[in-house]
Amino acid sequence: MGSSLPTIRFLQQPTSSAWLEQALANLDIVLLDHSHCERKAAGVALNLMFRYPSSAKLVRSLTAIAQEELQHFEQVNQILERRGIPLAPLVPPPYGATLNQQIRRDEPARMLDALLVSGLIEARSHERLGLLSEHCPDRELAKFYRSLMASEARHYGAYWTLADTYYERSALVERLETLAQAESEILSTLHPHPRIHS
Amino acid sequence: MGSSLPTIRFLQQPTSSAWLEQALANLDIVLLDHSHCERKAAGVALNLMFRYPSSAKLVRSLTAIAQEELQHFEQVNQILERRGIPLAPLVPPPYGATLNQQIRRDEPARMLDALLVSGLIEARSHERLGLLSEHCPDRELAKFYRSLMASEARHYGAYWTLADTYYERSALVERLETLAQAESEILSTLHPHPRIHS
Ligand SMILES: [Fe+2]
Ligand SMILES: [Fe+2]
Ligand SMILES: [Fe+2]
Ligand SMILES: [Fe+2]
Repeated sequence: MGSSLPTIRFLQQPTSSAWLEQALANLDIVLLDHSHCERKAAGVALNLMFRYPSSAKLVRSLTAIAQEELQHFEQVNQILERRGIPLAPLVPPPYGATLNQQIRRDEPARMLDALLVSGLIEARSHERLGLLSEHCPDRELAKFYRSLMASEARHYGAYWTLADTYYERSALVERLETLAQAESEILSTLHPHPRIHS
Repeated sequence: MGSSLPTIRFLQQPTSSAWLEQALANLDIVLLDHSHCERKAAGVALNLMFRYPSSAKLVRSLTAIAQEELQHFEQVNQILERRGIPLAPLVPPPYGATLNQQIRRDEPARMLDALLVSGLIEARSHERLGLLSEHCPDRELAKFYRSLMASEARHYGAYWTLADTYYERSALVERLETLAQAESEILSTLHPHPRIHS
């Protein structure tokens, strides 16, 4: 559990070993939080389609993402059910709300920021599911987390590609750096409650 | 095109032949509106899951519905693309908003009404897709509409079953009659713009 974990393109700082320890000591809660994350990921993709219903490429990509997130949601829920963990609500960590505050309110900046923030969240999920798949002693969970990784990687790639489709590359790169810094900053203090994004 | 169309359980009044004539004369617009309807249907299912995240049975049924609606959305959009019809926004008919006004604001009535209203919309979609599949001279479209019917029938069944799971049968039946009357009443005057629910 060293700190030499590889940094995923997009992310400024790798996840701390403190998060991994916290997560491994609270696998049930993290699994429940994961369920909420998958539902939210589907919701974010759908909301963006509602906001930009005429952007054909965006609609096509986000339809695919929303479908996959719902599939993941269903899969996590099946595991929860088999393990007798009820679908209880969980107070979310500040991660999502704090990141959303970074999204500028006026177009065209709003759509750019929304795509990049979603991409960052996907990249972080991908990184953390990878850590769980590698270090989780529960083999069913480790295998499950590994099975999701390719699709989460596609998701952050898709958000990046959409941003790159609708915006200038240089503006994109600069803005991503700012947002990625904010994202790593939020995670630099471990949230006391174990979550996918604590 | 007589008025002896079969009434689907749930619906108080069958669709008028005036609607069918209007739709057949405006197949492109109806197809575009259908795309919006499928996206909205996915949105409605997802919103209900966000509102009742701990109701396991509801979450399971609505996840399946949302997935199917997204699949339909994707399918309609592919047909639109092949036909060169851009994904333009369309002013919705008053149907959805007027029906939503019937939903009482306080629980437990709110969830009951939301489930029944969704069931009614699904039942009406099922009925109208059936009419289109039977009468549409464009064979690709007719075949496509027919292919969706079974799944829309499952959807109204699922909404009914959920209402029946969480509420007393007698309260359910009475409320459904009131809402179904309102639904038929909204459609008794043909909306001037051709839509799935004009
Ligand atoms: Fe996912
Ligand atoms: Fe994802
Ligand atoms: Fe549908
Ligand atoms: Fe449906």
